[in-house]
Amino acid sequence: MRKMKIKTPSESETVKTEVVFPNDTNPMGILQGGHLVQWMDTTAAVCAQTHAGKICVTASIDSVNFKAPAKLGDIIIIKAKITRAFTSSMEIFVQTHARNVLSEKKNLINEAYFTFVALDNKAKPTTVPLLKPVTNDESEQYKEALTRKKKK
Amino acid sequence: MRKMKIKTPSESETVKTEVVFPNDTNPMGILQGGHLVQWMDTTAAVCAQTHAGKICVTASIDSVNFKAPAKLGDIIIIKAKITRAFTSSMEIFVQTHARNVLSEKKNLINEAYFTFVALDNKAKPTTVPLLKPVTNDESEQYKEALTRKKKK
Amino acid sequence: MRKMKIKTPSESETVKTEVVFPNDTNPMGILQGGHLVQWMDTTAAVCAQTHAGKICVTASIDSVNFKAPAKLGDIIIIKAKITRAFTSSMEIFVQTHARNVLSEKKNLINEAYFTFVALDNKAKPTTVPLLKPVTNDESEQYKEALTRKKKK
Amino acid sequence: MRKMKIKTPSESETVKTEVVFPNDTNPMGILQGGHLVQWMDTTAAVCAQTHAGKICVTASIDSVNFKAPAKLGDIIIIKAKITRAFTSSMEIFVQTHARNVLSEKKNLINEAYFTFVALDNKAKPTTVPLLKPVTNDESEQYKEALTRKKKK
Amino acid sequence: MRKMKIKTPSESETVKTEVVFPNDTNPMGILQGGHLVQWMDTTAAVCAQTHAGKICVTASIDSVNFKAPAKLGDIIIIKAKITRAFTSSMEIFVQTHARNVLSEKKNLINEAYFTFVALDNKAKPTTVPLLKPVTNDESEQYKEALTRKKKK
Amino acid sequence: MRKMKIKTPSESETVKTEVVFPNDTNPMGILQGGHLVQWMDTTAAVCAQTHAGKICVTASIDSVNFKAPAKLGDIIIIKAKITRAFTSSMEIFVQTHARNVLSEKKNLINEAYFTFVALDNKAKPTTVPLLKPVTNDESEQYKEALTRKKKK
Repeated sequence: MRKMKIKTPSESETVKTEVVFPNDTNPMGILQGGHLVQWMDTTAAVCAQTHAGKICVTASIDSVNFKAPAKLGDIIIIKAKITRAFTSSMEIFVQTHARNVLSEKKNLINEAYFTFVALDNKAKPTTVPLLKPVTNDESEQYKEALTRKKKK
Repeated sequence: MRKMKIKTPSESETVKTEVVFPNDTNPMGILQGGHLVQWMDTTAAVCAQTHAGKICVTASIDSVNFKAPAKLGDIIIIKAKITRAFTSSMEIFVQTHARNVLSEKKNLINEAYFTFVALDNKAKPTTVPLLKPVTNDESEQYKEALTRKKKK
Repeated sequence: MRKMKIKTPSESETVKTEVVFPNDTNPMGILQGGHLVQWMDTTAAVCAQTHAGKICVTASIDSVNFKAPAKLGDIIIIKAKITRAFTSSMEIFVQTHARNVLSEKKNLINEAYFTFVALDNKAKPTTVPLLKPVTNDESEQYKEALTRKKKK
Repeated sequence: MRKMKIKTPSESETVKTEVVFPNDTNPMGILQGGHLVQWMDTTAAVCAQTHAGKICVTASIDSVNFKAPAKLGDIIIIKAKITRAFTSSMEIFVQTHARNVLSEKKNLINEAYFTFVALDNKAKPTTVPLLKPVTNDESEQYKEALTRKKKK
Repeated sequence: MRKMKIKTPSESETVKTEVVFPNDTNPMGILQGGHLVQWMDTTAAVCAQTHAGKICVTASIDSVNFKAPAKLGDIIIIKAKITRAFTSSMEIFVQTHARNVLSEKKNLINEAYFTFVALDNKAKPTTVPLLKPVTNDESEQYKEALTRKKKK
Repeated sequence: MRKMKIKTPSESETVKTEVVFPNDTNPMGILQGGHLVQWMDTTAAVCAQTHAGKICVTASIDSVNFKAPAKLGDIIIIKAKITRAFTSSMEIFVQTHARNVLSEKKNLINEAYFTFVALDNKAKPTTVPLLKPVTNDESEQYKEALTRKKKK
């Protein structure tokens, strides 16, 4: 019997830093929501692929609320962390902050849960390593991930 | 008393056609979820801005489920239609289909509800025209939009 | 004898909506002509590929006159419609309008005729379905397309 | 009386070299026509702005015939040269070649005439320096530019 | 006398994760050197701006050796850390690794030192906070930064 | 014995003209250093590939000093010329100028030496044609290239 691989959440934690450029904004200099979701999706995909060791595709994105606007020139910090691995799917939690260069103030922009599916080389779903939560926060997210999955 | 402007959903209906290019795909030639959400957000923003006659920003995106993959070279057709206007916010329904050039088969990729807020020239929320649904489908979406808003 | 496939112009009509972003403009905030032609070419290519059910390449672009400038933040609506199908080539008529979000004024920006050639899987020209014009306008465009082709 | 500035065609001749990247091609690896027109428009705009010493906008693009396909990885060489200056407009001749890296073969892809208008700082048409053709080829293009202008 | 602000290197450490997409590669699927330098420059700029609390511009980039190729689909991890702050300039050390999704192997791609200058709101050089190295490694880099500066 | 191919520097000299667009600049309208290096790398790669008749990859970039800032709307002229060919590598000298459209002033922005390696169709280093310098300047660069190579 093949022994199942086990990984911790910190092994695949992913950080992506971006700067808001003119083309990322609307005519009022506010970062476009859809543009941010694209950066979040890339960050979450890297996190999922690092856990799985496989190419992964986005299966779903949970609701995203934009709590504060990010502006032209702001530094955007996107953090992605796996909350739970299922057979071939993984839930990834993504959190975005914006920091203004001059004021050095940092705001939470949004948070969202992404679900990814790992694919084998024929583009069929394939099993992924188990996830072993370590910290209390990781254990709580792990439990809640199952609740979120059942609600769908 | 200023008379309130009224518009119908068809006045702001928006269609965006795209083609899946190499940079929009993952290493398996599948359109990235986040990239599609960006196109959907732009389409929904145009729809909201056409109804409002104001610059609008994304306030939230409801959950998005990717029902089928779109592939390299596929034609992507994104339709956005307003379901209901509130004081300064609007709910926009977006539906995405992919059509393969050679097989001419068309698949539903996903559907999602976006909420936009109209801004005045000081970037503060401002009132938008009322929406008057015309068809049965528009009336149903109009009613359900209120239910969705209350759940948040 | 293989029965020839026949399609109408409305079956392949294509709409692409865009927004003028900073990088699409010159230092005076005016949409670059060449950038607009690229969007028009993509829209026309989707129209040609939808009629042909084949990958198509641009063979020629007729002269393009820019009648009015589009500005940063304007909504651009590009419509492409096939006027006539020849053996392996198709003429596509493209019309572009710009709408200002705040003034809600809509201007015709330009019109142009594109010619596309359908390719088989060896990148050689291949036959395309016949076109059957339905409306008076479509019939007129159909007749004129032959005149335009003979002038070349 | 202000003495009119005079320039020769070689003073504003402009060369732009590009490489065909994946996103510039269709699913058969052929450079998209519209993408090439965008590069040509940028090259012609630099040429016009160098002659005029002003920001210039595209007024029209003459018909463009694609004589040969450029492929993924090809080197694209675009040359723009002014043929004649009128009061506030200039005609620019653009010629595009593609060179394959491995075979070292070079093909003419297309040729086109662009017309640009010089703008003052209020975005109104403004006078440009006179053009003095030097070589025989420049003199011929200079004469023909007037013929082309009258036909429009 | 104004008391000088002091920061540690870890306060401005910056991580940028990217994925190698088709347009980032040459026809052999190898990440272009210049494209990677652009990502490194953005990462280093965020690091400098976070230390300085000012907009910063690149003054110089030390020699960059590409030790191993990164490939299409690889995950790129770029880390930037300040080594020393001078009056208005800062030296930033940038290190790039590539990780293959399937083999999970990680390679050092390159390392380079960038120098940035902080600008005030008139785009003139302005003073930056002092840097206080904490770890042994930080102290060594701090000393060597002065040697590197003197050699220029 | 296969006779070695010989080429002169002028046979592969490459010019790339660009315009500084909003997305190429920082919030002060200054062209980003990393963005310019990417354009220089593409120009140098075309030069190397034209000399070699092979796909080439960047092996190293010598130190780059930014002597003057380029601004939004400036015309950027990048020239690349081979200085010496070794067995499978080539040193390319790149020089960048910026010209302001209105003032018509031209500034040297930077200069740098790039080293490229030619690859065969298995992505292994392969021999390149010899370089025969013609002018005095080319002969001097040719000699100095060896000195620079030995210092590494």
